[in-house]
Amino acid sequence: MTYCVGLRLSQGLVLLSDTRTNAGIDNVSRFKKMFTWRSRDRAIAMMTSGNLSITQGVITRINRAIEESAADDSIETILSAESMFRVAQLVGERMGEMQDRFRKSLEQRGAAADASIIVAGQRKGGKQRLFLVYSAGNFIEATDDTCYFQIGEHKYGKPILDRVLTPQTPIPEALKAVFVSMDSTLRSNLSVGMPLDLAVIKTDTYEFEVERRIENDDPAFAEISTRWSDALREAFHTLPEFYHAKRPSRKAAAKRKAPARRKR
Amino acid sequence: MTYCVGLRLSQGLVLLSDTRTNAGIDNVSRFKKMFTWRSRDRAIAMMTSGNLSITQGVITRINRAIEESAADDSIETILSAESMFRVAQLVGERMGEMQDRFRKSLEQRGAAADASIIVAGQRKGGKQRLFLVYSAGNFIEATDDTCYFQIGEHKYGKPILDRVLTPQTPIPEALKAVFVSMDSTLRSNLSVGMPLDLAVIKTDTYEFEVERRIENDDPAFAEISTRWSDALREAFHTLPEFYHAKRPSRKAAAKRKAPARRKR
Repeated sequence: MTYCVGLRLSQGLVLLSDTRTNAGIDNVSRFKKMFTWRSRDRAIAMMTSGNLSITQGVITRINRAIEESAADDSIETILSAESMFRVAQLVGERMGEMQDRFRKSLEQRGAAADASIIVAGQRKGGKQRLFLVYSAGNFIEATDDTCYFQIGEHKYGKPILDRVLTPQTPIPEALKAVFVSMDSTLRSNLSVGMPLDLAVIKTDTYEFEVERRIENDDPAFAEISTRWSDALREAFHTLPEFYHAKRPSRKAAAKRKAPARRKR
Repeated sequence: MTYCVGLRLSQGLVLLSDTRTNAGIDNVSRFKKMFTWRSRDRAIAMMTSGNLSITQGVITRINRAIEESAADDSIETILSAESMFRVAQLVGERMGEMQDRFRKSLEQRGAAADASIIVAGQRKGGKQRLFLVYSAGNFIEATDDTCYFQIGEHKYGKPILDRVLTPQTPIPEALKAVFVSMDSTLRSNLSVGMPLDLAVIKTDTYEFEVERRIENDDPAFAEISTRWSDALREAFHTLPEFYHAKRPSRKAAAKRKAPARRKR
């Protein structure tokens, strides 16, 4: 499986992906799922999930178009597209081609062809945008109401994002949020694994403020992971005990009348 | 969907279930998923998930056998079974019968027949035991290595259980854990909903220490929910910032040499 999360914040775009791929539980490998492109007027990042042959095919086609456009500038590429919206369309078109070509034979053999791609970026003259491209090539865009997308094993890491993220979250806080979200997923699901890939595109800079791999032994990630674990346990122990009784006894009823004991 | 969680701890068995059922997102209703039985020498609780017609059929058959056994004591029931293991087998057998009867026609109509049942209890002379019965009627038992089972929408609420539960967790702490786990699920998944049903069987008591419904406006659950939300946010804000840089600048490298700033 996979876990990738992308945020669209007023300060910029934040992307974090794992690198574990598995075809069955005894065939686990490491593949980069984060891809970045940079030109004079734009910075673009994508993260992929689902059938690896499909997503690799999409990325290969995107890169081949860029190579071919050097000799033939009539070829439209993600680096020449007039808007980030058009970039998402191009990704969706390549996805559609790959699905048309392989879905039927994959499904005949009992394999899943589904795939999805998070597309993030900004070009000069436009806003920073975050898209989620589905298998059918259609896509949706993050808005202020929902400022993040997750693909792959998204459930374990969703509660923390729901609690702390808003479009106004500053990038340092957002980094903590995606790391805690990833940490929860890593702990609960073996199909998601280190190392991680992180990318940050600050608003109106058109370049990667951060683009790095976070290895297994990364001390900063380990610290966030340990500190979060400690903080969670501490937070948990400060919770009040749940007041419970089948039928309130007289003693319990008396306690109930003294809410001061249970209120903060 | 559903979320149910059952714990087997040295102090006893703790069970918590939601009550939301949906057939499509526009057909949401409320059904009890927690069922309890009590006799002189045993206390048994079950929680159900999956196809509601299947699980209701299983519970109805279990209850009918108990009724019929009043007139014919050759009928084996969960209240007469010689062990909790045999109780789980009886549940598995009823599950198998329901699946044999309906699975084919359900699947022909595109409906899912899958179901699972958590079976918990203790009879005099035996230990407290926790089983998870699958659609095929087979089952597994909780051990000290894995002291809890979840059914339904289990992913959102798993990280907190993985972090705080051990077989030695005292029941008041365990109650907090299942409520926090349920709270995370309720917040992130609309198919899981209040009210909740809670049951606690303390070790070697053969009765329900707690067996109650927790309504939408329950002040104790609301307090745990609010306090957890606050504590999480607080814990989150105390986390260190993630150290990030494409290539460490001289300033950043200097910071790295002063780990006192980032260590606890």
